[in-house]
Amino acid sequence: MSDEERRWRELTTEQRQPRLLAAGSVPYQLLYTNADVQGITPSWPGVAPYTRGAYASMYRGRPWTIRQYAGFSSAAESNCFYREALRSGQRGLSIAFDLPTHRGYDSDHPRAAGDVGKAGVAIDTVEDMRVLFDGIALDQVSVSMTMNGAVLPVLACFIVAAEEQGIRPAALLGTIQNDILKEYIVRNTFIYPPAVGMRIAVDVIEHLSQTMPKFNSISISGYHFQEAGADPALELALTLGNACAYLDAALARGLAVDSIAPRLSFFFAIGMRFLQEIAKLRAARALWAQLLCKYQPRDPKSSVLRTHCQTSGYSLTQQQPLNNIVRTTIEALAAVLGGTQSLHTNAYDEAVGIPVAESARVARNTQLILQHETDITHTVDPLGGSYAIESLTRDLQAAAEKILADLEAQGGMLAAITSGYAKNKIEQSAVHKQALIDRGTDVVVGVNKFQHPDDDGVMEVRDIDTTALRAQQVQALQRIKKTRDAGAVSQALQRLRDAAAKPGTNLMPATLAAVRQRATVGEVSAALEDVFGRYQAEVSLTSSSLYVDNYGDDDAQVKAVRAQIAQFAHQTGRQPRILVGKLGQDGHDRGLHVIAVAFSNFGFDVDLAPLFQTPAEVVKHAIENDVHVIGISTHTAGHKVLIPQLLAGLKDTAIAVVAGGIIPPQDYEFLRQAGVREIFVPGTTLPECAARVMQVLSPDGG
Amino acid sequence: MSDEERRWRELTTEQRQPRLLAAGSVPYQLLYTNADVQGITPSWPGVAPYTRGAYASMYRGRPWTIRQYAGFSSAAESNCFYREALRSGQRGLSIAFDLPTHRGYDSDHPRAAGDVGKAGVAIDTVEDMRVLFDGIALDQVSVSMTMNGAVLPVLACFIVAAEEQGIRPAALLGTIQNDILKEYIVRNTFIYPPAVGMRIAVDVIEHLSQTMPKFNSISISGYHFQEAGADPALELALTLGNACAYLDAALARGLAVDSIAPRLSFFFAIGMRFLQEIAKLRAARALWAQLLCKYQPRDPKSSVLRTHCQTSGYSLTQQQPLNNIVRTTIEALAAVLGGTQSLHTNAYDEAVGIPVAESARVARNTQLILQHETDITHTVDPLGGSYAIESLTRDLQAAAEKILADLEAQGGMLAAITSGYAKNKIEQSAVHKQALIDRGTDVVVGVNKFQHPDDDGVMEVRDIDTTALRAQQVQALQRIKKTRDAGAVSQALQRLRDAAAKPGTNLMPATLAAVRQRATVGEVSAALEDVFGRYQAEVSLTSSSLYVDNYGDDDAQVKAVRAQIAQFAHQTGRQPRILVGKLGQDGHDRGLHVIAVAFSNFGFDVDLAPLFQTPAEVVKHAIENDVHVIGISTHTAGHKVLIPQLLAGLKDTAIAVVAGGIIPPQDYEFLRQAGVREIFVPGTTLPECAARVMQVLSPDGG
Repeated sequence: MSDEERRWRELTTEQRQPRLLAAGSVPYQLLYTNADVQGITPSWPGVAPYTRGAYASMYRGRPWTIRQYAGFSSAAESNCFYREALRSGQRGLSIAFDLPTHRGYDSDHPRAAGDVGKAGVAIDTVEDMRVLFDGIALDQVSVSMTMNGAVLPVLACFIVAAEEQGIRPAALLGTIQNDILKEYIVRNTFIYPPAVGMRIAVDVIEHLSQTMPKFNSISISGYHFQEAGADPALELALTLGNACAYLDAALARGLAVDSIAPRLSFFFAIGMRFLQEIAKLRAARALWAQLLCKYQPRDPKSSVLRTHCQTSGYSLTQQQPLNNIVRTTIEALAAVLGGTQSLHTNAYDEAVGIPVAESARVARNTQLILQHETDITHTVDPLGGSYAIESLTRDLQAAAEKILADLEAQGGMLAAITSGYAKNKIEQSAVHKQALIDRGTDVVVGVNKFQHPDDDGVMEVRDIDTTALRAQQVQALQRIKKTRDAGAVSQALQRLRDAAAKPGTNLMPATLAAVRQRATVGEVSAALEDVFGRYQAEVSLTSSSLYVDNYGDDDAQVKAVRAQIAQFAHQTGRQPRILVGKLGQDGHDRGLHVIAVAFSNFGFDVDLAPLFQTPAEVVKHAIENDVHVIGISTHTAGHKVLIPQLLAGLKDTAIAVVAGGIIPPQDYEFLRQAGVREIFVPGTTLPECAARVMQVLSPDGG
Repeated sequence: MSDEERRWRELTTEQRQPRLLAAGSVPYQLLYTNADVQGITPSWPGVAPYTRGAYASMYRGRPWTIRQYAGFSSAAESNCFYREALRSGQRGLSIAFDLPTHRGYDSDHPRAAGDVGKAGVAIDTVEDMRVLFDGIALDQVSVSMTMNGAVLPVLACFIVAAEEQGIRPAALLGTIQNDILKEYIVRNTFIYPPAVGMRIAVDVIEHLSQTMPKFNSISISGYHFQEAGADPALELALTLGNACAYLDAALARGLAVDSIAPRLSFFFAIGMRFLQEIAKLRAARALWAQLLCKYQPRDPKSSVLRTHCQTSGYSLTQQQPLNNIVRTTIEALAAVLGGTQSLHTNAYDEAVGIPVAESARVARNTQLILQHETDITHTVDPLGGSYAIESLTRDLQAAAEKILADLEAQGGMLAAITSGYAKNKIEQSAVHKQALIDRGTDVVVGVNKFQHPDDDGVMEVRDIDTTALRAQQVQALQRIKKTRDAGAVSQALQRLRDAAAKPGTNLMPATLAAVRQRATVGEVSAALEDVFGRYQAEVSLTSSSLYVDNYGDDDAQVKAVRAQIAQFAHQTGRQPRILVGKLGQDGHDRGLHVIAVAFSNFGFDVDLAPLFQTPAEVVKHAIENDVHVIGISTHTAGHKVLIPQLLAGLKDTAIAVVAGGIIPPQDYEFLRQAGVREIFVPGTTLPECAARVMQVLSPDGG
């Protein structure tokens, strides 16, 4: 030990004792030095294992692509928004589709009510797709499409629309997300059972590898894992695990590794753990290059992990929205220092709704400022060699490898998905995090500390009149259905059913043929559903005391809630029974599961509703199961249509309704008038939520 | 050369050729590797040379201090603002005084008109100081005071106010800026000649070293060098050069190095060159430890550079103000990754005025989010070992050493200051930067690229009614002057004059005695001025073609302006003559000098007004020098009072007035009504300014 090191060790015990930290994904050392990186082989950007970057000259050659995920309302409105974005410095497009489109329902489907055009743009037909890209040169602007469930008809509409605008498939640039596996773990925008989902994903990979050489055939997404609660190592492992599963399936189909692997792309979330997020992207590249070895690629491009990143939506707060600009900037910087190929930066109002023009501009400018005003792009991998970053890179890689081995022990990714193993790991992480926030150990500025009395959370929000939009879409659908060749459509759909029934047949050609005849997204999906059925994920409540274990079992508020519950049980003869669920096509269920675990830990009898229910179905479920209260978790603003329907269905019962999630404050009064008994603002701790629910159930009714 | 390295070298020439970059302060390599850091000795935080940090456990021991520089209007209003800041998570105070206080004028002085309470709080007396800190525990909250010119009476008021509130000097925590040398180079809030300024600075250092052990006796500031145009190496060199000059002077006074050096603190600007700014703070510590060797300190604390940082005001834009949150976040992150001890983050509206409550909150939250929501504080010096950061650290240190050698060759810092050598170096850098922005080589998002038509720059601004405030201050002064012992005051002031006349006598005791008798800040300053005189800095225009050399001599707009000027000269018999100046006590002259050089390059006959003139003095100067137009550069919002006075004085002349600088857009109409012919919004290129001035001077009068 050198004199300097000895002195440092003395000083850290003498003065300013270092704080203890809860171990995260991988622990942080107080200090990293040269000794910590001795075993790490120096690497070169653009050269395997690509730890220092996917390309040799990185941003000094060309900065990352600014690609903002956007879409709302009609194709025409989204088109305006895209053109403005391209005029203002954006480099590529990233399309957000609405939930009915994701789930394969046309806008006129009864289950689409409430969700049309809300969380993305409504696309029913080739015509909608033509309007969406009107005036945008699809052979010059790359288009990323977040589509998984209804990937066949939506991709087909895109290809046909481009063809009809004179652009051959081979000239199209972009990416289709086509990552169905993660939908079964989180987010839930699947349609068919997992094995069928996998078949369709490979169909798309195969078709694109043969006809669209400039198009990435899949974007394997870790983003949604982190958003649902995964820490960086878990996000890494599940994402690369899924990637291997796709690769295995494609190879089993007879494709060659070098024809597919260079066209795989990735998609990660970048949250607030600045150092670990930088390390995560570096570890992802190194681990991917290592995993690829067993496939023996000959093309060096096969083992390069190229990625898109998005700053974390979960990290944003409804409170003091301008704080979100700070958070997004920190995250964007981490993404870039980690070496991302393209980036979406969230807008400051996205904790509440779809960005308005100004917030979208600030989000874009965040990246323009990083590219033009800083020196970040001046040297490749500026943090390469940092003892801390290199150590965290190695540690995260090792942690992810360990999880991959665990998944392997579960029987591989598909098995870990169908058994719920993967989902459960994420849920545990989410419950743990929420308990730390609720008890104040993890600080969220403006939410559980440093709140400000002037902050009412009200801001201008882009309001979408989904009822009017739906009427307009329905009219357009009727017009198209009148003018197309009905016989040809029904023949094409039958051919698609036939193809679906034959294992090993690629479904893209039959889908393209049907879409050319103006079969709609919903009709194509329904034809496939005739053969495959629609998948209903099992809902189950993890039996664990994870929330109270982390929050503190002997906390005064928890004790008070338990006393209220005991009294209720004494008076009524049973525990208070709550049905926790969502309405419509929104599958974001992080909140749902966290609430269910916590309420169950407090002593509620918790009933979890299946996803994707109509209000009428939830009413039926609630009455049959004799619940006292329904808790609706909402995420994508369908609540103004769907919650009033729910309340109407309950009007002859004593069942109370409470709601929480992403609800713009200006909607609170509307919902209260409609009969919602409690609305839980983001940041309300779960013990408080529970206490307020018990108040609603008390004899004087809160 | 390894195979990997060879492959990397091939790839960088094959694909994505790296962009060429203009060399900055030190050049950036395309890639840094282990080979680049071979000569660098590993170092340990808290151990000399402190490259990795001033303390052994850094933020893991205790996060940096959030210290927002603030002050405006009256002591009572500023006190409210401070108390709110302390309630909301701020850890220390930093006091902004108004310009008359800086320059040693009481609020009732004729030269104070227009500036009272504008750029900071107005402090005339001990009473004002007592109100300023009412209810704030000065033995617990550390107070940083930005005061240089009038350091003696202001520090004395602070000490006496604290004593009268029951807190002994020895218990006071904080820092006094007391860095007069940089005022002669930039910013100009001096009162007396340089040698006297130096004597007073050492008086303060000596007094504090004897009586206030917890108070830093000087904060040697690079901040204003960067704001005025210096690049990181120049900022480093001038700051550490000044520090050595203070140390030399204090040693010459007979003080021991270990009684002073541990009490010196530093203050740097953090701009948008993210990597170089991080490296700069590391280089500053290493260089300081090295410079200290020759003083042979025995206390290890003597060679530790501890610093405060502030994000760059220059980098902020009036256009699209929320972009400034992004800029400030990037800069804050650089400051923290560089290892600052405390930090001020600018508010998004500071390009236009004093922060409003909301913008101040967002600025503070920027730091709270970094401390609480990221993992930046979890490990010491997270970027230590990075090939790029370590290389840039070494390169910046070497570049600064070279400049220090040049300064030595000029005869040392004091000589380089009085000869204008240091000022000229900064001016050249500022002119160069402006030319690059004007021609679009350097992009400023929202200003010279990615502008947005909806952006009119109008935002809520904290408006200070300086006339009303001044009346209130004058009343308070009269009250105090009536109630104090006039004879005792005049005796005390005479004793101060006597002390001043005796070289080597410390002026703090006599100042404290006078202030205890309720002598005002202005009276103490005037008494010293009686002995020392008031320093008037020479103004001189660098004869250089630096602006057009960098902007482009054959640019069409420059040619057009030159043609207009030639025509004007042909018609009137002489070049258009412009007087460029400022009004009142504002000494920020970066804009002034850049404009003067550029206009001179275009062919104007440029006359530079001395600083600190009243409107009447400028009128006289303009008439005597027979100018065609006066260009007023304003920075601290005294324009609403002073410009109308200027116009009134010119009403019988043909002299036109134009204005630019920091002017809230809501004031434009007021100034136009008052008779200002052109107002130049920030971002207007200098060729365009010149063309518009020529239009004003054309026969049809613009």
